[in-house]
Amino acid sequence: MVEEMTRDTWRIALAQIDPTVGDFSGNVRLIRERAREAAQLGAHIVAFPELVITGYPPEDLLLKVSFIDAARRALHLLLDAIPDRVLIVGVPWVESGILYNGAAILARGEIVAVVPKHHLPTYGVFDEDRYFARGSHTFRFLWGNLRFGVTICEDIWYPIGPASSLATRGIDLLVNINGSPYHRGKWIQRQVMLQTRAADAGCYLAYVNMVGGQDELVFDGNSIVLDPNGTILARGTSFEEDLIVVDLPITRVLSSWLHDPRRRWLARAESQPALPVVDREIPLPVPGEQLPPLPESVQRPRTPLEGVAEVYQALVTGVRDYVRKTGFRTAVIGLSGGIDSSLTACIAADALGPENVTGLSMPSRYSSRHSIEDAEELARNLGIRFLIVPIEPVHRVFREVLAPLGNQPEEPDVADENLQARIRGTILMTYSNRFGPIVLTTGNKSEMACGYATLYGDMAGGFAVLKDVPKLLVYQLARYRNSISPVIPERVFVKPPSAELRPNQKDVDTLPPFEILDPLLELYVEQDLSREELIRHGFDPEIVDRVIMMVDRAEYKRRQAAPGVKLTPRAFGRDRRLPIANWFHG
Amino acid sequence: MVEEMTRDTWRIALAQIDPTVGDFSGNVRLIRERAREAAQLGAHIVAFPELVITGYPPEDLLLKVSFIDAARRALHLLLDAIPDRVLIVGVPWVESGILYNGAAILARGEIVAVVPKHHLPTYGVFDEDRYFARGSHTFRFLWGNLRFGVTICEDIWYPIGPASSLATRGIDLLVNINGSPYHRGKWIQRQVMLQTRAADAGCYLAYVNMVGGQDELVFDGNSIVLDPNGTILARGTSFEEDLIVVDLPITRVLSSWLHDPRRRWLARAESQPALPVVDREIPLPVPGEQLPPLPESVQRPRTPLEGVAEVYQALVTGVRDYVRKTGFRTAVIGLSGGIDSSLTACIAADALGPENVTGLSMPSRYSSRHSIEDAEELARNLGIRFLIVPIEPVHRVFREVLAPLGNQPEEPDVADENLQARIRGTILMTYSNRFGPIVLTTGNKSEMACGYATLYGDMAGGFAVLKDVPKLLVYQLARYRNSISPVIPERVFVKPPSAELRPNQKDVDTLPPFEILDPLLELYVEQDLSREELIRHGFDPEIVDRVIMMVDRAEYKRRQAAPGVKLTPRAFGRDRRLPIANWFHG
Repeated sequence: MVEEMTRDTWRIALAQIDPTVGDFSGNVRLIRERAREAAQLGAHIVAFPELVITGYPPEDLLLKVSFIDAARRALHLLLDAIPDRVLIVGVPWVESGILYNGAAILARGEIVAVVPKHHLPTYGVFDEDRYFARGSHTFRFLWGNLRFGVTICEDIWYPIGPASSLATRGIDLLVNINGSPYHRGKWIQRQVMLQTRAADAGCYLAYVNMVGGQDELVFDGNSIVLDPNGTILARGTSFEEDLIVVDLPITRVLSSWLHDPRRRWLARAESQPALPVVDREIPLPVPGEQLPPLPESVQRPRTPLEGVAEVYQALVTGVRDYVRKTGFRTAVIGLSGGIDSSLTACIAADALGPENVTGLSMPSRYSSRHSIEDAEELARNLGIRFLIVPIEPVHRVFREVLAPLGNQPEEPDVADENLQARIRGTILMTYSNRFGPIVLTTGNKSEMACGYATLYGDMAGGFAVLKDVPKLLVYQLARYRNSISPVIPERVFVKPPSAELRPNQKDVDTLPPFEILDPLLELYVEQDLSREELIRHGFDPEIVDRVIMMVDRAEYKRRQAAPGVKLTPRAFGRDRRLPIANWFHG
Repeated sequence: MVEEMTRDTWRIALAQIDPTVGDFSGNVRLIRERAREAAQLGAHIVAFPELVITGYPPEDLLLKVSFIDAARRALHLLLDAIPDRVLIVGVPWVESGILYNGAAILARGEIVAVVPKHHLPTYGVFDEDRYFARGSHTFRFLWGNLRFGVTICEDIWYPIGPASSLATRGIDLLVNINGSPYHRGKWIQRQVMLQTRAADAGCYLAYVNMVGGQDELVFDGNSIVLDPNGTILARGTSFEEDLIVVDLPITRVLSSWLHDPRRRWLARAESQPALPVVDREIPLPVPGEQLPPLPESVQRPRTPLEGVAEVYQALVTGVRDYVRKTGFRTAVIGLSGGIDSSLTACIAADALGPENVTGLSMPSRYSSRHSIEDAEELARNLGIRFLIVPIEPVHRVFREVLAPLGNQPEEPDVADENLQARIRGTILMTYSNRFGPIVLTTGNKSEMACGYATLYGDMAGGFAVLKDVPKLLVYQLARYRNSISPVIPERVFVKPPSAELRPNQKDVDTLPPFEILDPLLELYVEQDLSREELIRHGFDPEIVDRVIMMVDRAEYKRRQAAPGVKLTPRAFGRDRRLPIANWFHG
């Protein structure tokens, strides 16, 4: 039986870690290490992110019995990690033959309960209705005088659901575990929502998020702990693993209830359909010990990244984890001397270390002199390897071989422009196959959206670093990177963008100026505005029609493109599939 | 007011048509034509497939306000199509700001009601929870003495839901409108289920399905009408547009109720949670006329395709509609003299006409003599154009240019093998860009599943015809095609499969024999069995491990592959995106 005892200050730890989909043993090791570290720091409760045992999102691996079974076995390996503390981990969980997205609460070597997720996101990058059933109840955990509840990710975004049912019943702490993907500025949106939820629930709110890249998603961390007024008590870092440890004096909760006039009304719960709340006792004595002082390193304040620095770090994180989790170590990039490939090389060097990056200059008969010079200067500044492979000999022989088929003009037609891009793609892929680096592609979102790219040419590669970065943001990111150390030659910023696939070619021969194109794409692609609405926004009807035509027709090309980091909630529809995982049987 | 009158025999027509996603004016024209034709044949009710106005599946186009609005306007264009009859058409429908997958019932120039879909499939190729809310009620329509209900696709697959609620209330006819994609032998599965549902509901059941290809889906038609005992009254054709017209004497329904002991119990409906059923009168007088006799062409019996013939027709349909709906007219195929490219050429010639197909032979230093001879003979037999482009000159220069990068062996390594495939891919794509045909790729499912294919090489193209066809089935399909007319040279069947990318290469050097590989892939990829279960099935553990490793690693390649026809409920996860549509604004 549990000893009767109370304590006012409870210490909670949020472990903001970077699991890998399907790497059960690696994920279990990460969780055990972080859990023990937290316990040594005196934490009573240690919470990990959503589906941390499998990694997130496991996608169609959730349809394999052997995968679900492996997750269950991995959970059992955690039972003895910190048996005298409470451990909260996300795990897929079968009950009566039905699969739930669960939060397992472990204590004293037992699974005390598995809380089912209630609100299943099925929009944007999410697809949870494809796999999971929604929970029809939730639990309130009682540990001496501490009453706490656990919810999972989407559950906290709804004003009504398990969180409000728990709040009505009365809790001191709500732990919300997450796999919440990054998009630009999302943490602010989350923080505002969480401040409201904490104040609505009138309890502490501990929000723990995943960190790192998985396939085309990046998780930004930015975990956060709030008091019953919605005041921020602590934060996790952006894009890095972290352990957040906070002391929660629970008298503060009763105090806030006494001061909040809404409590008297909410207590009756007549306003909302309440989910059944089942009470569960934590089978542990209330810890009686004095809490050890937290080391400075744990207590240091964290400032979330913002603006262009945030985007840059998201891209670095995405590249680093994609390359690592797919088993590559090195990367190769075609360097044209333009702004896109220059920025891509910077991101790759920062993600993988310059010694692991190779830049390939592949000049053609149409390349200007500065293309090679600028590429070489960038490579030298970054400290990456630099190689030159001229494509002219191959291009010439291709033209000879294709001439008998007819219709080959002297000045390059679109077929010949694409041919040059495909020769480059082939050289990069051959280099990759022979020497092992992943090919990083360099196309930006503005050009990709308009189909201003060559399928199986510059779109060929393993990861499209700038797939979701519009051209104007490419320039901002390059300026930002140069402000840290000036690696990109100044000329790269000032020369007009060009594919250099025919004499004197400029991007603006085909595309509207990026100052017009980028905001237009944002409204058409991201916000799904119609032609008429775009024109009402003041865009030239001729440009609107041209861009809509290009974007709609480019769909065919885009669906063939390599995955890349998502910077926005919805980019180009979705490209879903089984994740790239460390999931091997046996 | 509706005149009081009754009639016993009602005539229903099912219009099994092939709409195009986003082509509102084309779809409306198709619907109007078929509706009038049916009305001229005396039909009282004419039913069209699910979401026929937008085409199916519209995917993320459903997130555009302007798309939903265009669908609503298209529906209004149908109000005067057959105003003195009942027209049933699938349409996305907004009520109180919420989107439903609806069936609009039109009569006398009015929208009598829009029935919401209740069960939303979110599995396999389906994603409806992403867009739609589930209906919370249904309608029973009263037209004089005729009582009928309408359900949508998935609704009929559940034993409990709107169909059972309507049956409990009492109806003479249940119309089920569908966008049900083809997989092998699915029509039998459907037919068995529908026979049970008709007998359970104790009423006529009219099941109308879409036909034709849309992106990687193929709809097989096979519409069907059953009597209250589940006996089949009429069928639609497989893979072709059709109009099924059937007379339904409704006294038959009362008779079946009197004979079915379950009715006495079911009438109380105490056994199931009933959905609210709202009665709606059809604002038309009961038609008093004698029914005109149906022409022989309408009454002729249809035999559903089965076995290999069914698969072959699915592939022809998929190629024909993909090419047409994406705006191509002609196709080009790399002919190696092997069985895969030979079969692909047959399918293309049958789908597009031989005059619209070009075969390109691209021999290398490793090609055997018979490769070109067999390809040429096939082309001659099929009557397609045949061209030869040797890749040796390009291959040689590529090797010269790449040599300084180091590590280039004399005998080809994997990089060099892929290089040859990429040279061919580049030639095909250049031909496509210059002369306009779509590139059809030729890889089969067994090789694609194992990653025995070159990304941006033989995987480069617009449509992967055999993407979901295992190698042994390729041989069966080729034999079937030759039984119609002997076009594929006999030698192609007997020579061992080879990529011919290095001297004396054979597929079985890398892959297990297809007699083992194909059933193993079926169990691992389609049925998600674990390593242990596969070994229990009697497969050699060494082969199981090798194949699992290949399949899991090939995920990276597969996600880059062109879309193809699905022959199975679940192939390689999903590759979803905005559909290739005729959807242009303004």
